[in-house]
Amino acid sequence: MNIPQTSFPRVIIVGGGFAGLAVARGLENQELQVVLIDKHNYHTFQPLLYQVATGGLEPDSIAFPLRKRFNDVDNFYFRLAEVTNVNAKRNVIETSIGNLEYDKLVIATGSTTNFFGNTNIKKFAMEMKSVPQALNIRSLVLENFEEALLEKNLEKRLALMNFVIVGGGPTGVELAGALAEMKKGILPKDYPDLDIRQMKINLIQSSGELLKGMSKKASEKAEDFLIKLGVDVWKSLRVLDYNGVTVKTDGEDHFDAQTVIWAAGVKGDVIGGLEGTCLVERANRFKVSKYSKILGYENVYAVGDVACMETEGYSYGHPMMAQPAIQQGKLLAKNIILELKGKKLKPFIYNDKGSMATIGRNKAVVDLPKLKFQGVFAWFVWMFVHLFSLIGFRNKVIVFMNWVYNYIRFDRETRLIIRPYKKKNKYSFEKENV
Amino acid sequence: MNIPQTSFPRVIIVGGGFAGLAVARGLENQELQVVLIDKHNYHTFQPLLYQVATGGLEPDSIAFPLRKRFNDVDNFYFRLAEVTNVNAKRNVIETSIGNLEYDKLVIATGSTTNFFGNTNIKKFAMEMKSVPQALNIRSLVLENFEEALLEKNLEKRLALMNFVIVGGGPTGVELAGALAEMKKGILPKDYPDLDIRQMKINLIQSSGELLKGMSKKASEKAEDFLIKLGVDVWKSLRVLDYNGVTVKTDGEDHFDAQTVIWAAGVKGDVIGGLEGTCLVERANRFKVSKYSKILGYENVYAVGDVACMETEGYSYGHPMMAQPAIQQGKLLAKNIILELKGKKLKPFIYNDKGSMATIGRNKAVVDLPKLKFQGVFAWFVWMFVHLFSLIGFRNKVIVFMNWVYNYIRFDRETRLIIRPYKKKNKYSFEKENV
Repeated sequence: MNIPQTSFPRVIIVGGGFAGLAVARGLENQELQVVLIDKHNYHTFQPLLYQVATGGLEPDSIAFPLRKRFNDVDNFYFRLAEVTNVNAKRNVIETSIGNLEYDKLVIATGSTTNFFGNTNIKKFAMEMKSVPQALNIRSLVLENFEEALLEKNLEKRLALMNFVIVGGGPTGVELAGALAEMKKGILPKDYPDLDIRQMKINLIQSSGELLKGMSKKASEKAEDFLIKLGVDVWKSLRVLDYNGVTVKTDGEDHFDAQTVIWAAGVKGDVIGGLEGTCLVERANRFKVSKYSKILGYENVYAVGDVACMETEGYSYGHPMMAQPAIQQGKLLAKNIILELKGKKLKPFIYNDKGSMATIGRNKAVVDLPKLKFQGVFAWFVWMFVHLFSLIGFRNKVIVFMNWVYNYIRFDRETRLIIRPYKKKNKYSFEKENV
Repeated sequence: MNIPQTSFPRVIIVGGGFAGLAVARGLENQELQVVLIDKHNYHTFQPLLYQVATGGLEPDSIAFPLRKRFNDVDNFYFRLAEVTNVNAKRNVIETSIGNLEYDKLVIATGSTTNFFGNTNIKKFAMEMKSVPQALNIRSLVLENFEEALLEKNLEKRLALMNFVIVGGGPTGVELAGALAEMKKGILPKDYPDLDIRQMKINLIQSSGELLKGMSKKASEKAEDFLIKLGVDVWKSLRVLDYNGVTVKTDGEDHFDAQTVIWAAGVKGDVIGGLEGTCLVERANRFKVSKYSKILGYENVYAVGDVACMETEGYSYGHPMMAQPAIQQGKLLAKNIILELKGKKLKPFIYNDKGSMATIGRNKAVVDLPKLKFQGVFAWFVWMFVHLFSLIGFRNKVIVFMNWVYNYIRFDRETRLIIRPYKKKNKYSFEKENV
């Protein structure tokens, strides 16, 4: 991997998401060699992927080149590679570009879509955990409208205009809201020869409430906003299967839909070779101590989505969101430095700053520890927090300009099919038994 | 194709580039049905593709959704399709989504890369006529640096850092300049563990001057600028072949390069079924009258790159650039309306507004009919003209913000490998006889 052996201990960080970046930033200019490995050459600001998928933002404005982030840092190495295995006995990671020894290994590989073992859904449904996946959704949505325009069979046309989003967490809620705004403001103008009233947006949630984990008020208000935007919200309905034609549920309602977006679960994107994963609700995360050490290992750590740390009030680990990842990453960097200096380490305490979700124009819900509010002000808070959290000045400016433009013009202008998505089910459209 | 038959004559326009858009805009709200067909759902601002390829602009800022352009126009239909053939006897076009009858057919399909029949070059070299192709170059350039970093063999490493651009027209000159600026400002910071001095940028031109068609002064100054930026300019050197490893020329110099960008020629992207193409210098364009009618046809027109119209001073047709395309498109729309009203048509006279090319920061050359200038002012003129010509207010703002940012920060921030380019020659690196 062409990384020099120096007298400094080597810390390898796998993953340049929120957690990995926080660790790497915290270890800057220490007496350490830091190697950051990611399979992409950019950091993805995942909270805004849904806006890429719905034509509101260009992908390049929510991605930040990882090399640039560390342009002026000494003893820092970035490698574009996939880590395939950890050999903890030999302190070596195995990657697509060779093996590398570590003194300390930090696993910050994040999470991946959890299809709970359903191979049909995995094959036919769309997921949205990366920029290319968000672009695939953007292409598919637009391609389905182009196809609907030509489709004379009503049943097929309705299926092309039927959108099913599975999972009522922030991703599902935000996507459903954004699609509803496309339906309202853009699609009737772009497709005057289609009856856009026939477009349906279904949000399906297996439990009895949306935005589980947020306050009851936020959940109810979000549902209220979605219904006002024209989204069909289905609660306490579980999706069992999707064969590319029909979404089968455990209720009476089935959905013939050509676009199914699976936002119903994530799981840790663990690396092979380590034992002791935390299997809480099939979450597939590494069990770690309050110092982010993977149980049973002395020099292997996990932070962020892939880590499952039990602290008071979080007996199943922290939520798989940006905040715990950033906080764990920052503290781990501090602890690594403290340990080097032979000082006492600090245990992790999660500082819950609250959570929020946006549904659409002037519509968001915010739960702060001491204050919960919804509506226009919440929407501005949501925008401010996301703009502030984006990495890179250029990205902030470009996203801000897009938002101002979209707000004033009721528009979403990046509705481009740059790389058409090759639907797996395009020519097997006939209805089958599921 | 689900387009209603009305009492209005139907004009089909194939291609949403500069020429096709100009025709469609000119025919708005007339007693006509206008059908625009393109294989992409967006217009591409081709003059800035090279900035997408070199990480200076996001692709979404130089593409504009075609449907949006005609949101408020009646009797207008857009279809996303590829036109495969014209049956002129029956007045029907054949497309990937079905056949359609026309009263008048306007072919504005533009141009495509001309490899002059060399299948090796076509297979191994990169082209840059579309957004996906520009993104492929962006990915490949960055992937080659990631690979160079790991390559211990000096010869192979040099080849990964050796860039050959074939063709000294505006595209080649602008690409070479942009790569040279990446070499200067960005790559040494991004790849501190590579010796970026080993990177070579070669611009190869078969004739004795760059920017053929522009003034001698512009040509010389452009070369001067390029040399100052560190580009190796090779004139009167013809590329004969490229096998994925070595670029073979008709001179003594051969180039071992893993990135070859072919900007040495374009040809009309003609549609099958029509006779009478203009084969001047294998340009593959339709011979048209001064009224843009394809010779031998009564109701089939060609405009832009795909048309070859002889007018005074242009015995081999007009240059394959935006200006002739826009002017021909505008006039054709007027003539179609005049013809409908039974009035006399106007013959085309090309108004040469001049041409320009940028080499880099503060470096451009501008030839106006009465004034030729180079340097900083030319660069500002170049930027102003391109910003002004971009379609869409949002695109103008985003491009402007990027340019300001890039100028102040000496940066190009969209250096992202979003869809890795699958090199065809990656594992056949060993040197062979060419």
